[in-house]
Amino acid sequence: MVDSGKIIQCLPNFSEGRDLDKIEKIVNAFRRKTGVKLIDYNNDVNLNRTMVILMGEPQSIKNAMLEAMGIAIKIIDIREHKGQHPRMGVVDVVPFIPIKNMSMLEAVNLSKEFAKEAGERFNVPIYLYEKSAIKPERENLAHIRRGEYEGFGEKINRPGWKPDFGSRQLHITAGVTAVGARMPYISLNINLNTDNKKVADSIAKSIRFTSGGLRFCKAIGVKLYNSQLVQICVTMTDYNKMSLYKVFEMVKMESKRFGVSIINSKIIGTIPMSALVDSALYYLQVDDFSMEQILENMFME
Amino acid sequence: MVDSGKIIQCLPNFSEGRDLDKIEKIVNAFRRKTGVKLIDYNNDVNLNRTMVILMGEPQSIKNAMLEAMGIAIKIIDIREHKGQHPRMGVVDVVPFIPIKNMSMLEAVNLSKEFAKEAGERFNVPIYLYEKSAIKPERENLAHIRRGEYEGFGEKINRPGWKPDFGSRQLHITAGVTAVGARMPYISLNINLNTDNKKVADSIAKSIRFTSGGLRFCKAIGVKLYNSQLVQICVTMTDYNKMSLYKVFEMVKMESKRFGVSIINSKIIGTIPMSALVDSALYYLQVDDFSMEQILENMFME
Repeated sequence: MVDSGKIIQCLPNFSEGRDLDKIEKIVNAFRRKTGVKLIDYNNDVNLNRTMVILMGEPQSIKNAMLEAMGIAIKIIDIREHKGQHPRMGVVDVVPFIPIKNMSMLEAVNLSKEFAKEAGERFNVPIYLYEKSAIKPERENLAHIRRGEYEGFGEKINRPGWKPDFGSRQLHITAGVTAVGARMPYISLNINLNTDNKKVADSIAKSIRFTSGGLRFCKAIGVKLYNSQLVQICVTMTDYNKMSLYKVFEMVKMESKRFGVSIINSKIIGTIPMSALVDSALYYLQVDDFSMEQILENMFME
Repeated sequence: MVDSGKIIQCLPNFSEGRDLDKIEKIVNAFRRKTGVKLIDYNNDVNLNRTMVILMGEPQSIKNAMLEAMGIAIKIIDIREHKGQHPRMGVVDVVPFIPIKNMSMLEAVNLSKEFAKEAGERFNVPIYLYEKSAIKPERENLAHIRRGEYEGFGEKINRPGWKPDFGSRQLHITAGVTAVGARMPYISLNINLNTDNKKVADSIAKSIRFTSGGLRFCKAIGVKLYNSQLVQICVTMTDYNKMSLYKVFEMVKMESKRFGVSIINSKIIGTIPMSALVDSALYYLQVDDFSMEQILENMFME
């Protein structure tokens, strides 16, 4: 795809998951661009949010992302946004993930370049988060986003909450944006056979780190639009340190107290091979395994 | 490793698993050879058998394998062999598995070259099996091996059992050898918390294809030497059509009737990535997954 061989992943989240016409206008910025591969995009009507999956050459990704942000800010008004996912801006968060031939430091530098250019061009306040965070209290995205758009008019003027780039005042229609480099996350949605949102909330609360659950685990309960099901949306922020099977088995365990069960689950976006292998080895009770035993490229018949 | 980019795997089984001196002499033929990578070798004292895992350039693998066979025939006398694994020769079986940039047809041709040269050089009767078999009744290795070494003096003269290459008479000290190209197998050993060999035999019988079990599944029960455990040794001959989790869950299910349980399991040798992914997706109840979601090469910190 590129000369440098460097590949970065970018997973921007836009606060629009229902108006397909607007979503297409934004996503179009990622089409037919040299060095940019639009892997997928998922618009979720319940969350009223669209996550885009991009891979490509770092500078090409940055430029396409700037273009998409310009379009999103022009056509979306954050004041009209209602959805189940917390949000603080039209372009809510722009994560950069080093995939190949790139160090985390290079990804951090790219995220800062993007943050600076986007802040200046669109006059939107930008907060650097995760590996790009300049202060420890800004590492956690949820902490930055607390209060959401509605709370930011006040929060932005609080001591310690001056944006890292862009305007020092809230952008009325675009809100604020978080930008940062981070490890690849794993996103797992688990569907339960109940329409009781309280059950999903309770299970999500029980498994997530911030309320006494698993380390490196974020989770929210979601009621599925036009469906009899609820869903636990899980984000694993460090799959090297916390395994997929732990999340799954803990959701199963917590479901029992409500007499509900897991119908199925879905992995959103990409997942590192070793995360799936790790869970297979757990369930198959495999001891004493080396990743070198894996044949990745199989033969042709 | 090689110019052609073709990589073949070769997994010869030698009927000696106890005399480490002899085993080293054989395995040495695979060391310090251009185009040959000795991945691993496992000598099993219970089976009295050593399986070697080789990968490399086809012609280099063939030549090193000829050298090793010559050594093995010189230092092992099959008449003295006692072990839990059925066997018919000093070099019991030589499977060739196409791994990269090779078709199955090319692997079949390589296996025939090896069979012809080995038969002529060592005067050992050779049977082609699996994808290399010339007759359908020789596809199944177990069918060829039935009667083992002790029965071959008679079997070799029976109508339809003329060897494909080499001597038409049994080699008294080396027995006979099966050679063929095949799909990659998966070898899984499952340990149970009992020392009752009958339990292992019964479970193995219940899960293997030939006695009413799973398609593409071979299994034997083994009593572990110097241990309170028994083991189910499973070979899966087509992981694309029959999944690892089916074998594991069926062993678990059959164990219940004896009140025993699985302690752990071990994957012997290599395993295709997709076989592990397939089982992870089963246990995590993942729907609607594409192999393109997998990130195989992760970033550097």
